[in-house]
Amino acid sequence: MNQKMGRASIKPERPVYILNSASIVGTKEAEGPLGLLFDRVGENDMFGCKTWEEAESALQKEAVGMALDKAGVSPEEVSFVFAGDLLGQSMATSFGISSYQIPLFGVYGACSTCGEALALGAISIAGGFADKVVSVTSSHFASAEKEFRFPLEYGNQRPLSASWTVTGSGAFVLGSDMFCAGGKARAKITGMTVGKVVDYGLKDSMNMGACMAPAAASTLEQHFADFAVSPREYDKIITGDLGKVGQRVLIDLLRDRGYDISEQHMDCGLEIYDGESQDTHAGGSGCGCSAVTLSAYILKQLQEENWKKVLFMPTGALLSKTSFNEGMSVPGIAHGVVIETAS
Amino acid sequence: MNQKMGRASIKPERPVYILNSASIVGTKEAEGPLGLLFDRVGENDMFGCKTWEEAESALQKEAVGMALDKAGVSPEEVSFVFAGDLLGQSMATSFGISSYQIPLFGVYGACSTCGEALALGAISIAGGFADKVVSVTSSHFASAEKEFRFPLEYGNQRPLSASWTVTGSGAFVLGSDMFCAGGKARAKITGMTVGKVVDYGLKDSMNMGACMAPAAASTLEQHFADFAVSPREYDKIITGDLGKVGQRVLIDLLRDRGYDISEQHMDCGLEIYDGESQDTHAGGSGCGCSAVTLSAYILKQLQEENWKKVLFMPTGALLSKTSFNEGMSVPGIAHGVVIETAS
Repeated sequence: MNQKMGRASIKPERPVYILNSASIVGTKEAEGPLGLLFDRVGENDMFGCKTWEEAESALQKEAVGMALDKAGVSPEEVSFVFAGDLLGQSMATSFGISSYQIPLFGVYGACSTCGEALALGAISIAGGFADKVVSVTSSHFASAEKEFRFPLEYGNQRPLSASWTVTGSGAFVLGSDMFCAGGKARAKITGMTVGKVVDYGLKDSMNMGACMAPAAASTLEQHFADFAVSPREYDKIITGDLGKVGQRVLIDLLRDRGYDISEQHMDCGLEIYDGESQDTHAGGSGCGCSAVTLSAYILKQLQEENWKKVLFMPTGALLSKTSFNEGMSVPGIAHGVVIETAS
Repeated sequence: MNQKMGRASIKPERPVYILNSASIVGTKEAEGPLGLLFDRVGENDMFGCKTWEEAESALQKEAVGMALDKAGVSPEEVSFVFAGDLLGQSMATSFGISSYQIPLFGVYGACSTCGEALALGAISIAGGFADKVVSVTSSHFASAEKEFRFPLEYGNQRPLSASWTVTGSGAFVLGSDMFCAGGKARAKITGMTVGKVVDYGLKDSMNMGACMAPAAASTLEQHFADFAVSPREYDKIITGDLGKVGQRVLIDLLRDRGYDISEQHMDCGLEIYDGESQDTHAGGSGCGCSAVTLSAYILKQLQEENWKKVLFMPTGALLSKTSFNEGMSVPGIAHGVVIETAS
C-alpha cells in the first residue's frame, strides 16, 4: 500500500526510479563551478532560435530528448510528461514538448515546479497509472527578466539580494523498474512532502530568497514531523534557489523551531554560480536552477554513493508582473522529494 | 489494480467520488440560461475587491469554501488542492486558496485546467495518496481580457468567432467513499484520458474554438480507442468552450475519422450564455466556464439520473500575450474525464 504520512506527505509502497536525466544550460552556467557536469551547453543563449521564449522551449525539447536517449526510452513508451516553466501561461512548455506527442500535465509552482513535477510523476507511477513518465522544467535569464522585471536594455541595477535566473532545463525519466534499456537507474524517489502557500507579507521581488524561506521552513518542519526524522536523516537537505539571504533566514527560522540544518543544508542557487567572480549577487534561481543541479550534480553524488539520501526541496516565489504592480505580497511554496541511491 | 488503458488513458480500480461541489459566477452568467442553478452570484464583478485579479482570487476562495461546507469537510481533512487559472503565474490561485492552508499542486492547461485538476485529483485518491482532495479553477472576464487581449477601455471590436470569458469558479471535493458528512456523493469519476498538445498552426486568438477543436478531436479519438467504446457509450460528450465555430470543426473532424458525435455533443460555452440576447458571439470560455457548468448543471443532471454517464472534456488554447505577439501559433489541449451517476 502507498502510505499517507500525515496530511501533506506520501511514502510510495515501492520506490519510483529516476531512470536517467539530462541537463542543458547557457554559457554563464557553463562557466560556473558545475560547468563541466552539464550534458550540453548552448553556443549562445539564443540556442539557434529567434526569440528568448523560443530558446527556452528549445531547452526543454533538448533536455527531454537527451534524457530519453540516455534512458534508452522512446517517447511512445512515456505515458505522461509533467512540465512547467516561469513564463506566462507556461509557454516554454507548450511549445517545447509538443513535438514528442506525449500526454501532458502542465504544472506551475514558480521555481518549486521541479519538485512538483517529480512528485506528481512519482504519484502517477506509484499509483499504477503509468510505467514511465518524464518530468521537466526550464528557465531562461532573458525570458524571465522580460516576464517579471525590466527590459534588459534598461541596464537596471540589481540589489545584492537579487538572484540571477538560470538559463537551463533539466529533464528526468521516471519509471517503476530499477533497470531500463539505458542501464541501472540513477536514483530512487522514496517520499514526498507537498508544500502550502506561505505568505509572510514580504513584497520585495528583488529579495525572493527571504520571500521563499518561510515556505521552505514550513515544508521542512512538516516533513520532519510526518516522517518522524531529524535533519541527520539526510546527507544533504537541498533547497532550490534561496540564495545567500534566504539560506540564512531558513536556518534561523528552523533553529527557532528546534531544528538545526546548518550542517546538511545546501542550496542549488549557491552551487551553480561563483557569486564573487560571476556577479550573480544572492545566487541562481528559476525553474531550471534546481532541475539542472539535480541532474548534473546531485544525482551524480547519489550514483557515486558519496551521498545516500537527500531531501530535494525546490522553492518558489509566487509573484507575477501584475501582482507585483498591484502591490501584492510575494508568498512562497516549497515541495520536498526524498531521493536515495538506487540500490 | 488501477488500470492503464493504452498510454493516455486510466481506469481507477475503484471510482473516485465527487462528494460535493460549488459554483460562483458574475452577473452576466447569472443572467444566462443556467443562471438560477449557480450557488452564488456576485453583486458586481469586483466581488468586494480592489482589482480584477483579487476578485478572481475571491471567486476561488468562495467556491472552495462553499464546496467544503456542502460536503461537510473541513480544510484540515483535505490532503491536496489541485488548482489553476488563466492569469500569468496562476496568481488567482496563489492568493485565492492560500488561506485554507491545504498543500497545493498548481496546474496549468489553459481552459482545460478543470479537467486536468479533476484527473490529477482522482489519480492521487485512486493511488491511495489522499482520502480527500479539492480541485478548483477560475476565470474572470476582465482579468482575462487584460491578460490576453486589449484594455477594456479601448472598446475593441470582437469578431463573431471570439468567445466571452466566464467570470466564475467551480470547486469540487473528491473522495474515496461514496458518503461524507454532507451526504451521498454527487457523482463518480471512473476514467480519464490525458490530452497531448495538438497544433494545427492556427494563429487567430479571436477564434480559439477552431484552435482547440483539433485537440478535442485527438483526445476523443484516443479515448474511444483506449476504452473500446463508441460515442453512444455516453449520454453526453461535453467539451469546455469550443463555442459555435469549434463545435462545427470538432464534429467534422471526428466524422472524417469515423465517429459521429453530433447527437451526444454539448459544449459548456454554448450552454452558459444566450448568444443572441447576451452578445457573447461564439460562446463562453475560460477555466471557470466548464467548472461552473459541471458543478451547477452537469452534476445535477447526473444526480437526478437524467444522464447516467458523460465524458467531460474541457479544452484549452495554449497562448500568451507574448506568444501571440511573437507570431506563434495557438495549439490546443483537451483532457477527458468520465463521470457517472454515483450509485
